[in-house]
Amino acid sequence: MALRSLSKLKLNKSLVRCFSAEPKLVSLDVNEKTGFATLNMQRPPVNSLNLELLTEITAALTEAEKIKCRGMVLTSKNDGVFSAGLDIMEMYNPEPERMKKFWMALQDAWIKLYGTSYPTVAVINGHSPAGGCLLALSCEYRVIVQNYGIGLNETQLGIVAPTWFISSMKNVIGQRKSEIALTTGHIHSADEALQIGLVDEVVADKEEAIARGEAFLKRFAKIPPLARSLTKKFLRQATIDDLVNNREADLNRFVDLALLPEVQKSLGAYIQALKKKSSKSN
Amino acid sequence: MALRSLSKLKLNKSLVRCFSAEPKLVSLDVNEKTGFATLNMQRPPVNSLNLELLTEITAALTEAEKIKCRGMVLTSKNDGVFSAGLDIMEMYNPEPERMKKFWMALQDAWIKLYGTSYPTVAVINGHSPAGGCLLALSCEYRVIVQNYGIGLNETQLGIVAPTWFISSMKNVIGQRKSEIALTTGHIHSADEALQIGLVDEVVADKEEAIARGEAFLKRFAKIPPLARSLTKKFLRQATIDDLVNNREADLNRFVDLALLPEVQKSLGAYIQALKKKSSKSN
Amino acid sequence: MALRSLSKLKLNKSLVRCFSAEPKLVSLDVNEKTGFATLNMQRPPVNSLNLELLTEITAALTEAEKIKCRGMVLTSKNDGVFSAGLDIMEMYNPEPERMKKFWMALQDAWIKLYGTSYPTVAVINGHSPAGGCLLALSCEYRVIVQNYGIGLNETQLGIVAPTWFISSMKNVIGQRKSEIALTTGHIHSADEALQIGLVDEVVADKEEAIARGEAFLKRFAKIPPLARSLTKKFLRQATIDDLVNNREADLNRFVDLALLPEVQKSLGAYIQALKKKSSKSN
Repeated sequence: MALRSLSKLKLNKSLVRCFSAEPKLVSLDVNEKTGFATLNMQRPPVNSLNLELLTEITAALTEAEKIKCRGMVLTSKNDGVFSAGLDIMEMYNPEPERMKKFWMALQDAWIKLYGTSYPTVAVINGHSPAGGCLLALSCEYRVIVQNYGIGLNETQLGIVAPTWFISSMKNVIGQRKSEIALTTGHIHSADEALQIGLVDEVVADKEEAIARGEAFLKRFAKIPPLARSLTKKFLRQATIDDLVNNREADLNRFVDLALLPEVQKSLGAYIQALKKKSSKSN
Repeated sequence: MALRSLSKLKLNKSLVRCFSAEPKLVSLDVNEKTGFATLNMQRPPVNSLNLELLTEITAALTEAEKIKCRGMVLTSKNDGVFSAGLDIMEMYNPEPERMKKFWMALQDAWIKLYGTSYPTVAVINGHSPAGGCLLALSCEYRVIVQNYGIGLNETQLGIVAPTWFISSMKNVIGQRKSEIALTTGHIHSADEALQIGLVDEVVADKEEAIARGEAFLKRFAKIPPLARSLTKKFLRQATIDDLVNNREADLNRFVDLALLPEVQKSLGAYIQALKKKSSKSN
Repeated sequence: MALRSLSKLKLNKSLVRCFSAEPKLVSLDVNEKTGFATLNMQRPPVNSLNLELLTEITAALTEAEKIKCRGMVLTSKNDGVFSAGLDIMEMYNPEPERMKKFWMALQDAWIKLYGTSYPTVAVINGHSPAGGCLLALSCEYRVIVQNYGIGLNETQLGIVAPTWFISSMKNVIGQRKSEIALTTGHIHSADEALQIGLVDEVVADKEEAIARGEAFLKRFAKIPPLARSLTKKFLRQATIDDLVNNREADLNRFVDLALLPEVQKSLGAYIQALKKKSSKSN
């Protein structure tokens, strides 16, 4: 991925694309006036999180830090889906080495996103199940467009959200609501999500969502960035360390669980259901 | 206690009593159609939790697991009282060895109930102070019949709720509300309990409570049980481990506290007040 | 500071001043009828927390324990300001040894206040930013007079609330709301504070605030004090231990942060702004 630092560019246009023109799985746009970056996920058709997309997300988050952006909006170029979550093809009948790399890339992306020094907003302009919900939960603020759903629905697929998915949710809605949300694997409507605090705002469309997300970022306009980022670190570091200090155990637990015959069977049934649904709608 | 496994029974009736016909302190009924078990506490007059009742509760919870029930309702056969809590006679002028067994039986029952693989609902069809409240808090959902009260009121009796009682409450209503509830020892009316999240629903009578409780259990009808139970384990194991890794210290702390002269005096005064009340109402 | 124990006094007046008549930075008044103490901060003009005020607060909290008060109201003699927080003059161009003593006095005051055996209420009769908010958060109940603001606004000054400030807030309003409150450094209006649970009641004036605060304290009238204080200890000790076991690391972190050139610069700018504001209003 060819990233060019905003700081090295001399452009008159206020909107700078930090990536080269080649098609990529993400794009990072920076508004020079506001200093806000927009990280667009754009892997067709539904931003399923595979090894390559996760690797690009981490690189873009790092780039946004290098160019000292004042805040970031995480959103989707594919209207209707924020992210469909982990790419099931990385887990179903997997090639072992690739599956490990995939999981480590997911760990990397979460560690980076959960701990960014700059403020982050998820503009959820489409459905946001499982890994998609995790990305949204890892931002500091969530604005969802009405009619879309969000939740950690892993149990519905017969799989289990890792401990750090669970912690990310607990840190937003608390233990009690997380227990119900996670065991039932419920996908919350936008209004349900607002009611339990899983999102902060429900709006009519993406344009309004971006405006509201940027309004959140603007709350930090006069806050010295060092003080802000250290405060965030104090609040989030323990959760991050829980994973950083247990990456290998977490990896092994994922691999062992994913390879259980009943889990493979659940995933296979799910893929069949998706194919059937897809062929019907064609 | 003679338990017969549902799986070994060939019966036409949909409701199976898993216990023999002899009078017992609990009964475990299983509905073969739904797969839901009902664990009835039935120690006269008020389901005070003594060594024998706690031992039977643990055995019934284990039996429900063996027969792979799809969910469990915990309730009382004695309408008007869910459980009056720990049997004070186990603590007042105690025989030391029995008191230790009693406390370990309480630890066992909580560890089992808090960590069941199947979903659990408390149908609170009567007052639910102290240990009664603990049992309710340890389930995954709580439906209370109006006009009854619930709370960890230990301080009112001059005793102290153990750390794992406190954690059970914190995991439901959070640190702040737990602090007020626990230090004041307040017994909450059904509506107060609903307002702070100590219960999930308030209903008119036991029949409706069971219907609502089973509606909660039905939310898991299509959730693969293994994924569900592992998710619950991820959410609850740290709280369970806090006790499992400190059972002896917890036991000693209880024994030391219970034997303090001022605590014995408080318990004695409480028992006198109960006797007075009882003789007046006769 | 010359403290006289209430227990040694034989007075007819119900209100006993526990301090000598010399002007002091705090006064401790005890109502003999109710057993409630009132700890007044009275360092002109805005109860900025310097070494001397913090030392007197700790001594008064200890005295209130010795005389076995039944509860304490923490408030300000300087209407309009509860406490302006840490005295910036202790941090700006500091004398190193004094700055260390100052920070250790702050640690002492918080450890004492957070863990008092008797119940505590903050009657917030004026603005309550930063360290002022910390004192309020450390009490068991908060009543604020309308039109005043409260919050941990450290980031606005370019400094960082220590971990135990953050924990004190999290224990009241939870992780999610704390994250927003702390990173934005927002000063909440009384109504905003009520809405997020940062305070428990908003009232019209100080008189009503004291009445409401004492109403809270009266909830413990019949609760045996030993059971109450042990229950509080179970709920708060882990948070206290986080500091007690890391006092030196916490001190070093504070000193290192405070002496960063950009932090000194932020403090300098803040002091200039205060002077300007002050000279304008004169």
